[in-house]
Amino acid sequence: MSIENAIGELKTLMGDRLCISAAERKQYGQNETYYKEMLPDAVAYPKDEKEVSQVMEICNKHKCPVIPWGTGTSLEGNSIPVNGGVTLSFENMKKILSVSPDDMDVTVQPGITREELNINLKEFGLFFPVDPGANASIGGMAATRASGTTAVRYGTMKENVIGLKVVMSDGRIIKTGSRARKSSAGYDLTKLIVGSEGTLGVITELTLRLQGIPEEIASAICSFPDTASAVKTIIETIQIGIPIARSELMDSTSIEAVNEYSKLDLPIKEHLFFEFHGSSSSVKEQSETVQEIAAGNGGGDFHWSTATEDRNKLWKARHNYYYAIKAKNPNHTFLVTDICVPISNLAEMIDQTAKEMKSKGMAPSIMGHVGDGNFHSGIMVRPNNDDDINLAKDLTRRIVERALELEGTCTGEHGVGIGKIEFMEKEHGEAYHVMSSIKRTFDPNGILNPGKVVKIN
Amino acid sequence: MSIENAIGELKTLMGDRLCISAAERKQYGQNETYYKEMLPDAVAYPKDEKEVSQVMEICNKHKCPVIPWGTGTSLEGNSIPVNGGVTLSFENMKKILSVSPDDMDVTVQPGITREELNINLKEFGLFFPVDPGANASIGGMAATRASGTTAVRYGTMKENVIGLKVVMSDGRIIKTGSRARKSSAGYDLTKLIVGSEGTLGVITELTLRLQGIPEEIASAICSFPDTASAVKTIIETIQIGIPIARSELMDSTSIEAVNEYSKLDLPIKEHLFFEFHGSSSSVKEQSETVQEIAAGNGGGDFHWSTATEDRNKLWKARHNYYYAIKAKNPNHTFLVTDICVPISNLAEMIDQTAKEMKSKGMAPSIMGHVGDGNFHSGIMVRPNNDDDINLAKDLTRRIVERALELEGTCTGEHGVGIGKIEFMEKEHGEAYHVMSSIKRTFDPNGILNPGKVVKIN
Repeated sequence: MSIENAIGELKTLMGDRLCISAAERKQYGQNETYYKEMLPDAVAYPKDEKEVSQVMEICNKHKCPVIPWGTGTSLEGNSIPVNGGVTLSFENMKKILSVSPDDMDVTVQPGITREELNINLKEFGLFFPVDPGANASIGGMAATRASGTTAVRYGTMKENVIGLKVVMSDGRIIKTGSRARKSSAGYDLTKLIVGSEGTLGVITELTLRLQGIPEEIASAICSFPDTASAVKTIIETIQIGIPIARSELMDSTSIEAVNEYSKLDLPIKEHLFFEFHGSSSSVKEQSETVQEIAAGNGGGDFHWSTATEDRNKLWKARHNYYYAIKAKNPNHTFLVTDICVPISNLAEMIDQTAKEMKSKGMAPSIMGHVGDGNFHSGIMVRPNNDDDINLAKDLTRRIVERALELEGTCTGEHGVGIGKIEFMEKEHGEAYHVMSSIKRTFDPNGILNPGKVVKIN
Repeated sequence: MSIENAIGELKTLMGDRLCISAAERKQYGQNETYYKEMLPDAVAYPKDEKEVSQVMEICNKHKCPVIPWGTGTSLEGNSIPVNGGVTLSFENMKKILSVSPDDMDVTVQPGITREELNINLKEFGLFFPVDPGANASIGGMAATRASGTTAVRYGTMKENVIGLKVVMSDGRIIKTGSRARKSSAGYDLTKLIVGSEGTLGVITELTLRLQGIPEEIASAICSFPDTASAVKTIIETIQIGIPIARSELMDSTSIEAVNEYSKLDLPIKEHLFFEFHGSSSSVKEQSETVQEIAAGNGGGDFHWSTATEDRNKLWKARHNYYYAIKAKNPNHTFLVTDICVPISNLAEMIDQTAKEMKSKGMAPSIMGHVGDGNFHSGIMVRPNNDDDINLAKDLTRRIVERALELEGTCTGEHGVGIGKIEFMEKEHGEAYHVMSSIKRTFDPNGILNPGKVVKIN
């Protein structure tokens, strides 16, 4: 069998860095949501780029699937080995290769997590701003085109990865982009690989754009009478040019869960969580203006956190949203929606979603990156319960269809994985077939993370 | 002959919207730099996307080259019909299709110029920030991945085009992206088409991200003792988080030319031109901080322009740089370099370039988008004088090679066209062959703007 032959050759190449024990494979067959466990045939721990290239050569020869794996925090089954094969773990490839404070960039290996990176950048007064909540690996974040709470100010992985090294399906190593801040020299392969979820190549090195740690950071929360007034506050904030750093919506059902889980006592209403970055006077000006805008839209008082520990508590509560809604539903896992629409359609989209979920007796638990028009709702399901999962999928389907009608997308930041693949043709039409032709060009044997992003025959 | 057959069918389809007169063809055989005139066999003026699709179907069938043309302001021969064929002019496709002030986006046809667009956006309090100097078409700017003076703050076309409609080589129409601000739904075809210079498809519609017109805009100029101190001022400005809107370097030879052409009396020294955007107090704070940084690096006094007419005069002088250096060299045209390096290598790169040009008896005439690490130098040549052109090309080759050694790119914003194609393999290595395979997948007959970006057999 081809996978067996590949594993035999890989064993010779890698020795102990190739594992086929059930326990180890099980560890790489998990995911954070409702998808069922599926195990790879082996887990490889390459020591460097050259070894990744050798692995790809062997696997390509034997048509053996290869699934790159960061920290396993993806939410759409993006790293599940649906056809078996070899999962590539980057535990041995976590180095920071170089930092340039003058150029405000850093070059890293894919296995480093964003928190590990930021701890190391602190001494330079710099930070990497993309924050998806989970302590994901930088390679995985790039592969998923992740974003999160700070994208409204600093952009997504797309805007923050300036160059890559990538091993192609046949083992060739390519370098995309450079350390120059901009270039018009040909097709943008960096942006093509970012968001390709390991289906076009394996990322082995990333050069990232950094930001200076702001002189001052202030956070605030504010309640609103309804979704529309909260969204309108953010629309006006952006229109007026306030460079808001975070603007997160939580609906009343999310607040209820977060209160319980994180020992807070917020009123059970829609809330916006704000963060402002800048010089002291700029943060003051930004926050005063936003308070005025919020008041004009019926918002309550601002509750401020400027001390680091208070801010951390607030954002930790926000980041623990998933655990909070899970804690309210013991013995459940969930499916999380991730649609993104033009912000002018966001309030309508959120309200319709909440209405539909309530009509099924569910707590909507909506949490949104308002400035981007992106929100999530957690649909609770009992693990491996097909009735629950089918109900959740039906609901997701309707939410996605409405998002597409409202000129949006089926996934703002979680990626396609297996969960969104059924919507790809509907969302992209003929462009989906162009994506398929790119996949076939890059990976003629279909070995790179098969079954994800595009279906090919 | 295949081109003849295509033109015959196009004539039937388009009637008067297809021209084969010598005068009309001559108009589309020109370019703004040293490249020799080359005429297309016909000029087509499609009335809409459907007609572009029909044109592509016909031309693909007959293997007839198609060259999209915006305003002809490109600088690397990007729109020269090297193999003849049909030039597509977008004069009939200049409409603004929709504006959404809440979403701060606009959808346009490719023929509209950036000045036309901005005049129309004014009533909404919005503007499109990318400013390459020339009043280029939006379609051409996207195709070239243009940027210019404001990229340091607002990004290049890459960051500001959020969706496209594109006619493929076989006439299929695809839509890339959506009006959602972000998406992780598959391969980023938008970013693949932006910068592809008409070699992968013909852009027929663009959705652009807009900015609010700032409450206050202030401009200033400041002289510096040398390049290094000017560059260091910008490095420190960016590190500290000042969202500077423009930061343009002009060397002493450029200042001399600009003084003469635009009737200014600036001291003949290196200068930085600054622009600050924001609220009144934010502009005040930004400019005070930058003045301190400049003074710390040996900069002279700031000369301010806050009144609109003064600012316009200053920036017009900057934008007329090309005309200024041309005016100093009557009966000459020029080749303009466009390398971009990490900003930490910029001063070295500029000084070496100036030294080399001076050693050949040339005025370096260096003008740079410092914040991006990108600069230009105009090398004057007598039109159609092969000795001059070969000398200029030799010099360019050495400048590009040094830029690549310094981790940069051969073109920051002018594109590859024919002028930079010889450097593509050296810059990208194996990735260049991946680009070629994308070209072959998208355009198997090689009819889309042949001879540009990648060489295919």
